[in-house]
Amino acid sequence: MARRVVGVVGPDAGASEMVCKHAYELGREIAIAKWVLLTGGRSEGVMDAASRGAKSEDGVTVGVLPSSDARGMSPSVDIPIFTGMGQARNNINVLSSEVIFVCGMGPGTAAEASLALKARRHIILVSPDEIALRFFKTMDPERTHIATDASEAIDIARGLLLRGD
Amino acid sequence: MARRVVGVVGPDAGASEMVCKHAYELGREIAIAKWVLLTGGRSEGVMDAASRGAKSEDGVTVGVLPSSDARGMSPSVDIPIFTGMGQARNNINVLSSEVIFVCGMGPGTAAEASLALKARRHIILVSPDEIALRFFKTMDPERTHIATDASEAIDIARGLLLRGD
Amino acid sequence: MARRVVGVVGPDAGASEMVCKHAYELGREIAIAKWVLLTGGRSEGVMDAASRGAKSEDGVTVGVLPSSDARGMSPSVDIPIFTGMGQARNNINVLSSEVIFVCGMGPGTAAEASLALKARRHIILVSPDEIALRFFKTMDPERTHIATDASEAIDIARGLLLRGD
Amino acid sequence: MARRVVGVVGPDAGASEMVCKHAYELGREIAIAKWVLLTGGRSEGVMDAASRGAKSEDGVTVGVLPSSDARGMSPSVDIPIFTGMGQARNNINVLSSEVIFVCGMGPGTAAEASLALKARRHIILVSPDEIALRFFKTMDPERTHIATDASEAIDIARGLLLRGD
Repeated sequence: MARRVVGVVGPDAGASEMVCKHAYELGREIAIAKWVLLTGGRSEGVMDAASRGAKSEDGVTVGVLPSSDARGMSPSVDIPIFTGMGQARNNINVLSSEVIFVCGMGPGTAAEASLALKARRHIILVSPDEIALRFFKTMDPERTHIATDASEAIDIARGLLLRGD
Repeated sequence: MARRVVGVVGPDAGASEMVCKHAYELGREIAIAKWVLLTGGRSEGVMDAASRGAKSEDGVTVGVLPSSDARGMSPSVDIPIFTGMGQARNNINVLSSEVIFVCGMGPGTAAEASLALKARRHIILVSPDEIALRFFKTMDPERTHIATDASEAIDIARGLLLRGD
Repeated sequence: MARRVVGVVGPDAGASEMVCKHAYELGREIAIAKWVLLTGGRSEGVMDAASRGAKSEDGVTVGVLPSSDARGMSPSVDIPIFTGMGQARNNINVLSSEVIFVCGMGPGTAAEASLALKARRHIILVSPDEIALRFFKTMDPERTHIATDASEAIDIARGLLLRGD
Repeated sequence: MARRVVGVVGPDAGASEMVCKHAYELGREIAIAKWVLLTGGRSEGVMDAASRGAKSEDGVTVGVLPSSDARGMSPSVDIPIFTGMGQARNNINVLSSEVIFVCGMGPGTAAEASLALKARRHIILVSPDEIALRFFKTMDPERTHIATDASEAIDIARGLLLRGD
């Protein structure tokens, strides 16, 4: 039977230290929960931090990459999916994740969070800024959640997955 | 030589009358400017209104559809591109448009506006609400523009295209 | 109402002079028939030759490109669709074409002809070699057609489009 | 470090019993070799048989699906990647596989084998018919291999992966 897959999305270059810390913790907790971690697979920022966190607890990490080969891939990705599709791959990430954790914000991250809502996935914004929270809450109050840290985000995800939403 | 292609993005079902009026006017003005109009091609809301506006002035309309056939396609699309890719097609729309006009807001529209900024395209928000404007301005102040109506939006686009940005 | 769109597929670099001559003639005849020509949009081989042929008769040419910008694009493309998806864009080409003309053969062309059959499109092989003809005929005898030259290929397409297959 | 991923492609409905037997054996041997198996993920024919074979030896199975959800997915897929892209997903399968095993033939399979050659991947045709073998051999003699059964196919793959081609 298919394993439970959850996604962590966030900026690559330019992600703050705090944002990367949240991503690393999310990766750890996802591995502890025995979920498969799916990210965009790149070697910087949130994607790399989450993948490293998951590997620190021996989790399984999937990277759905924009590129057609391994250049710029996080060394903490176990299973690389090379799409060769650039940012069009963002939609694959959200369709393949039962719940999407959002750490930090930027154009690519905003695209993924928006596509997640479009695909009726729940998004959990970890320590978001006020404007981003209001923007997504306004579009879909029911599927936009907020967590102050990784641990609270995991609890929210666990609740959603139990409900089967 | 390739023609100038500009995009209009916005919600399908649920677009307000005012938003559709802006989209129709944008389509008209785009046709008058001899630009090719690119939309998501669907038969409702902003995509249909913009395409109808362009056809009222004998413009050329391209629809890059999520579907693999003509079901749900606007009758005002001249040249349908059937992607069969769902929302992954959004990235094609922004890559293929030199400038993107944004009418109304929703998860699909937010994804397109975000992907546009990621691809370093300028977006022109037509009469946006306060939160959406602040959200995109915060992410990319230089490439996020605001217009009160279609006519002002076209003037901004003309300026950007002349500058060759 | 949407215009009739037909596709011409074939190799870029490495297409023989004879293959390019067929492609040019196909482009000319497609324009004369008032159909829109869709190709992969690149500046070499069959895609460029067909597009040039169509423009010689003032036809409309669409190029669905693997790239995310105009580098390597045929100057005879009117309306470029930048997919940024590499060869994954081949499926868009066949879904968007009512009939697919195949000039020459190679891995990319074989992928497009195969995807066309998978999508239940008719393919018309123009002066194919014996092995290619047998390969596609074996997979789908009903939808695989052969023509000795561009003019015969256009006649076959016209018959198929009239039947509405 | 990323695990070694290899692909098995072949028809879904309509795959013969012999073809499915080869696919099952390939799956088994891939799992024994500790490679990750990647297929198109569907619940019929070659994709399902290969995935079942891999699970019989406790292998890891990835399914890159044309659909946007689990309908029609093989129960032997561990990690589903939902692309929502139909046959455009075929290119992802070949980019993500270091070597591609081809069992049986049909339009979708031919597209994947062709895209594999286009992406400069080696393909190993397991017990192919004469026409298919000649077709692919003609296009790329260096990267088209033939094996009489699963065991020989695995030996060829092992040789190619050692060479690092």
